[in-house]
Amino acid sequence: MTISVERTKTPKQKPGTDQLVFGKVFSDHMFICDYSPDKGWHNARIVPYQNLSIDPSTMTLHYAQSIFEGLKAYKTKDGHVNLFRPRENIKRLNASCRRLCIPTVDEEFALTAIKKLVDVDRDWIPEGDGTSLYIRPFIFATEPHIGVRPSTTYSFVIITGPVGAYYKEGINPVKIYVEPNYVRAVRGGLGEIKASANYAASLKAQVEANEKGYTQVLWLDGVEKKYIEEVGTMNVFFIIGDEIVTPELSGSILPGITRKSCIELLRHWGYNMNERRISIQEVYEAHEKGLLKEVFGTGTAAVISPVGELCWNGNVITINNGKTGPISQRLYDTLTGIQYGKLPDEFGWIEKV
Amino acid sequence: MTISVERTKTPKQKPGTDQLVFGKVFSDHMFICDYSPDKGWHNARIVPYQNLSIDPSTMTLHYAQSIFEGLKAYKTKDGHVNLFRPRENIKRLNASCRRLCIPTVDEEFALTAIKKLVDVDRDWIPEGDGTSLYIRPFIFATEPHIGVRPSTTYSFVIITGPVGAYYKEGINPVKIYVEPNYVRAVRGGLGEIKASANYAASLKAQVEANEKGYTQVLWLDGVEKKYIEEVGTMNVFFIIGDEIVTPELSGSILPGITRKSCIELLRHWGYNMNERRISIQEVYEAHEKGLLKEVFGTGTAAVISPVGELCWNGNVITINNGKTGPISQRLYDTLTGIQYGKLPDEFGWIEKV
Repeated sequence: MTISVERTKTPKQKPGTDQLVFGKVFSDHMFICDYSPDKGWHNARIVPYQNLSIDPSTMTLHYAQSIFEGLKAYKTKDGHVNLFRPRENIKRLNASCRRLCIPTVDEEFALTAIKKLVDVDRDWIPEGDGTSLYIRPFIFATEPHIGVRPSTTYSFVIITGPVGAYYKEGINPVKIYVEPNYVRAVRGGLGEIKASANYAASLKAQVEANEKGYTQVLWLDGVEKKYIEEVGTMNVFFIIGDEIVTPELSGSILPGITRKSCIELLRHWGYNMNERRISIQEVYEAHEKGLLKEVFGTGTAAVISPVGELCWNGNVITINNGKTGPISQRLYDTLTGIQYGKLPDEFGWIEKV
Repeated sequence: MTISVERTKTPKQKPGTDQLVFGKVFSDHMFICDYSPDKGWHNARIVPYQNLSIDPSTMTLHYAQSIFEGLKAYKTKDGHVNLFRPRENIKRLNASCRRLCIPTVDEEFALTAIKKLVDVDRDWIPEGDGTSLYIRPFIFATEPHIGVRPSTTYSFVIITGPVGAYYKEGINPVKIYVEPNYVRAVRGGLGEIKASANYAASLKAQVEANEKGYTQVLWLDGVEKKYIEEVGTMNVFFIIGDEIVTPELSGSILPGITRKSCIELLRHWGYNMNERRISIQEVYEAHEKGLLKEVFGTGTAAVISPVGELCWNGNVITINNGKTGPISQRLYDTLTGIQYGKLPDEFGWIEKV
């Protein structure tokens, strides 16, 4: 399928590198492609960024049949543009499609669409430490119909926008609230895919944690409310003695691409890296014994987000004196080094635009 | 807040009473009202039914921060228009708002909006047994922003459309598949509110049940996968010996208004009506002993939907010889009788437009 390109006649003013915030400013163009049962995916086009016109009965507004992905394009010192493991995002996009009864997209086609859009808006990729072009592919139901069943028509859209360094002063530990009541997802539900629905379920806990002075919540499993699942919108790792642990993918945990990359790096470096069930009780007991060395979240937005404090049922513990630990720092430096082309791409993770 | 009215200059052709289907045809007008932090809910207006123009980064497309309600307007033989317990829908709408961090709406204002819209499109209310005007109020996040947090702006929209009798030949038992793997909701999640997200989570199980020849699924609890929660998009009742049981509201079950009305009617009639935990095992054991007399779903769309067959892990049981039971029939006749003004409104459930 060819992708037509209609360039904007009224380019927008780009924000300065010091004015970049996450998710508010979008580039000049967007990709859009439609699905209908008779034509399949068709009419792939890059057009000026513009509003969508949707019927008020459009199914996604009523039944949240929508999924998304998030990845970034990085400008290297020598002027190249890097994507980090974009095929993993596209594979996960299709896993999300299958779970929500949405037709999948061809992987090579989706990769071409991402690259072509990034190329058209190449000038929007900011230059500066930690800055990047955030890329948001998403697919949503478009049929005007309010009976509950999968839609027959969809749109696959990609928008992009320049984003700043997640932490202006370098990586900085955050305070995390262990959520005792609300549940994000349970096995058998949508937790292991990137469904819009999961994020709706996370809002109230997030707001209440913020009100208590915490940045994000740590989610426990929906069945026993004992086992650790994720931190906010990130996966989470614990360094206990000489073991590094992250919760195994149990059916309700998002299989993060930064998570996967950290596991691969840590194993490559020879660490005792295990994916297994881990309870919040075990984490607190490890802290009690002086064995809890580092805790960190992993995700596309912040890459590595060290955790400096946990609060569980009123019990507050401080991790690594509230400072970024050496393994968190090494992972951050290595991943961002590869992303920005400062380090060699030993694992074949970079796709050039 | 006043509601302005702009009438359409190009009224649409109304479908014939025999051509009515659910959720495909919408009336000439819609209600819309906006929310912003500085103005609160404002600019309430009834306008010709029209597409919405939304930014592709509109938060609801990405994070499913949207909720809805469903109710009906019925035309009586003497030409009145009845709503059935609309205040209950508005109360639940606000409960949904609170859980999803959406600003609530004033109850009286929302009722006025519903009545005014129905009045403007009064000619769209079909006349004929079992037909009605379906009313769909919904609220969704409108801020163009792709960071995960509650939106700062929203739209409250109401659309309506004429719908036919749910069962053309009167009420008719359906076949239900007891879902062993997928989970709709778990306590601590969104199951007890009418979040769009819950419906996304239901699609795949529904499709797979349909492929096996079943109309809907029966959801078990997300923790133990033992206890009965809902049937598809309805609540469910079991008549076992001289007891009538419906699952108690456990935090993951939608508090249906038809459910509540059935409980009130059955108690008024002197039945031993209990809201309690009930396992699928208990239902099958009751059937084994010859005590399972009737099973039926309750909801706005079908009012009462008798269940003629259940399939649980390959074990198929037939209920009441696959026929509508006397209590299901009595509830259906009474509720529709009240809705269409054929029976006196003893409980004050009718709100006239």
